[in-house]
Amino acid sequence: MSADPQPLFSKVTLIGAGLIGSSLAHAIRRAGLAAHVAVHDARDEVLAEVKAIGFADSVHSDIEAAVTDADLVVFATPLGSFGGLAERVAPHLKRGAILSDTGSVKGCVIRDVGPFVPEGVHFIPAHPVAGTEQSGPGAGFAELFDGRWCILTPVAGTDAGALSTLTQFWHRCGCEVEIMEARHHDLVLAITSHVPHLIAYNIVGTADDLQTVTQGEVIKYSAGGFRDFTRIAASDPTMWRDVFLNNRDAVLEMLGRFMEDLNVLQRAIRWGDGDALFNLFTRTRAIRRSIVSAGQEVAEANFGRNRKTPS
Amino acid sequence: MSADPQPLFSKVTLIGAGLIGSSLAHAIRRAGLAAHVAVHDARDEVLAEVKAIGFADSVHSDIEAAVTDADLVVFATPLGSFGGLAERVAPHLKRGAILSDTGSVKGCVIRDVGPFVPEGVHFIPAHPVAGTEQSGPGAGFAELFDGRWCILTPVAGTDAGALSTLTQFWHRCGCEVEIMEARHHDLVLAITSHVPHLIAYNIVGTADDLQTVTQGEVIKYSAGGFRDFTRIAASDPTMWRDVFLNNRDAVLEMLGRFMEDLNVLQRAIRWGDGDALFNLFTRTRAIRRSIVSAGQEVAEANFGRNRKTPS
Repeated sequence: MSADPQPLFSKVTLIGAGLIGSSLAHAIRRAGLAAHVAVHDARDEVLAEVKAIGFADSVHSDIEAAVTDADLVVFATPLGSFGGLAERVAPHLKRGAILSDTGSVKGCVIRDVGPFVPEGVHFIPAHPVAGTEQSGPGAGFAELFDGRWCILTPVAGTDAGALSTLTQFWHRCGCEVEIMEARHHDLVLAITSHVPHLIAYNIVGTADDLQTVTQGEVIKYSAGGFRDFTRIAASDPTMWRDVFLNNRDAVLEMLGRFMEDLNVLQRAIRWGDGDALFNLFTRTRAIRRSIVSAGQEVAEANFGRNRKTPS
Repeated sequence: MSADPQPLFSKVTLIGAGLIGSSLAHAIRRAGLAAHVAVHDARDEVLAEVKAIGFADSVHSDIEAAVTDADLVVFATPLGSFGGLAERVAPHLKRGAILSDTGSVKGCVIRDVGPFVPEGVHFIPAHPVAGTEQSGPGAGFAELFDGRWCILTPVAGTDAGALSTLTQFWHRCGCEVEIMEARHHDLVLAITSHVPHLIAYNIVGTADDLQTVTQGEVIKYSAGGFRDFTRIAASDPTMWRDVFLNNRDAVLEMLGRFMEDLNVLQRAIRWGDGDALFNLFTRTRAIRRSIVSAGQEVAEANFGRNRKTPS
């Protein structure tokens, strides 16, 4: 993660300056990974904000100009935009460039982007498993990727040198890197990310719809557990709509299992089967301990909310 | 919350020295609410830990001795123990004493404790809506209740003076206090606390059972959202078993609505209805903002996990 005198790339172009794109720009600067960071975003107000914050060497409303001469181009926009973006940038990519992304589903990226990749351009889909509930260029920060995993899902025949370069790039942005088959990635993320988001969105919606319990009551007594769910249910709606539309089969598979298990718990409650409840509740404790040990979660009770002097 | 020269009570007895009982002892000391804090716990090793930490003026394995002469007795044990405790302490309660508790369900407390309350003892069920995922006397801290709500569910005919005293007590422990009917409390907590815990336990169980995704993968990629759920799924198993066994009707009602809504989302994903997904995901953002504004949640992104210098 320390700055290296030799940048990996002369020019990196980030397409999209939301939470992930802007965090990546900060991380690239922190580690000195590119001589020039160019940013394109379709929205002028976002580009103005990027300029004001100052994490890019150039900002472009013209996507073709943004990618010209880039050694690495990264799509960091909602998944539904990828096919159109690929079609537009393809003719302007430099031979030898790496084309990558940060999307949360990988099968659809290969399906939508793959057909447009020109001969001589190295297409390597990537997914840094990191984020916060906030959106936009102002939400980005260099530390977002520190200690998190970035999963690369190269297609058959990917150039080993390009793969090694992209691996180094993510390492120096702070990530551990794992190589995985796209289909398996999409299954793993369905249970570790997509279904959790779906049920968080769902319970917040259920609570919002109640008439026997007011919204004021839901808010006042949210410290009983509900508020933990609202964090991920505050994530970007467009990004998440596209995740569910593009990882349908894996999400439905994992959601089906979740609902099956929930039916068993529902029956245990109805019939007063305390042992079934106790056994599950005991087993689940161990998983959190493992996540904390693996450095993927803070050890502090209550997410450190009771810390006396928050920074 | 500042210490007052005049304690509210000469002697307060806490039955149970887990997270809530021990936090209450710390909060009582911080505010100078009792001249003497007595603690009973059924487990000798817990009493030894209480002695070692030193937040009680006396510790008792004998429950009768613990409650003798107490002005306030608080049950802070799992709900399933309340009936037996009430039967045992009832003959030893002082006339004019307040008998209360910290249980997460209130209808069952009135059902189980009410019949044993002697003439002249003021029985006022209470529920401070606060907690962490940690358990035991070492997990307690005075600030747990600061800014949280404590709900009192007095039965008909409750003495106004005793109610006022208990309200003052919780105020000075750091809480806002609300009076509510027990049945409504149980419905409100079903959606704000009990069902969220149930679905958190459930998804952690579902993930643990998978064979296509390894437990190591679940742990490594948990930063995608899953880890948020593991916090409340690490809560005390006995306490939570008793919550579900004792708030069956309200939990089944709210769980039914949750599942109904989830079926609608499942169908939206299957049929590619992006608008339905986008609309829900937009609506749920507003709720988190309200919870943050109400002071029931920290405003920092990612629960402040990316804070550079955790205390």
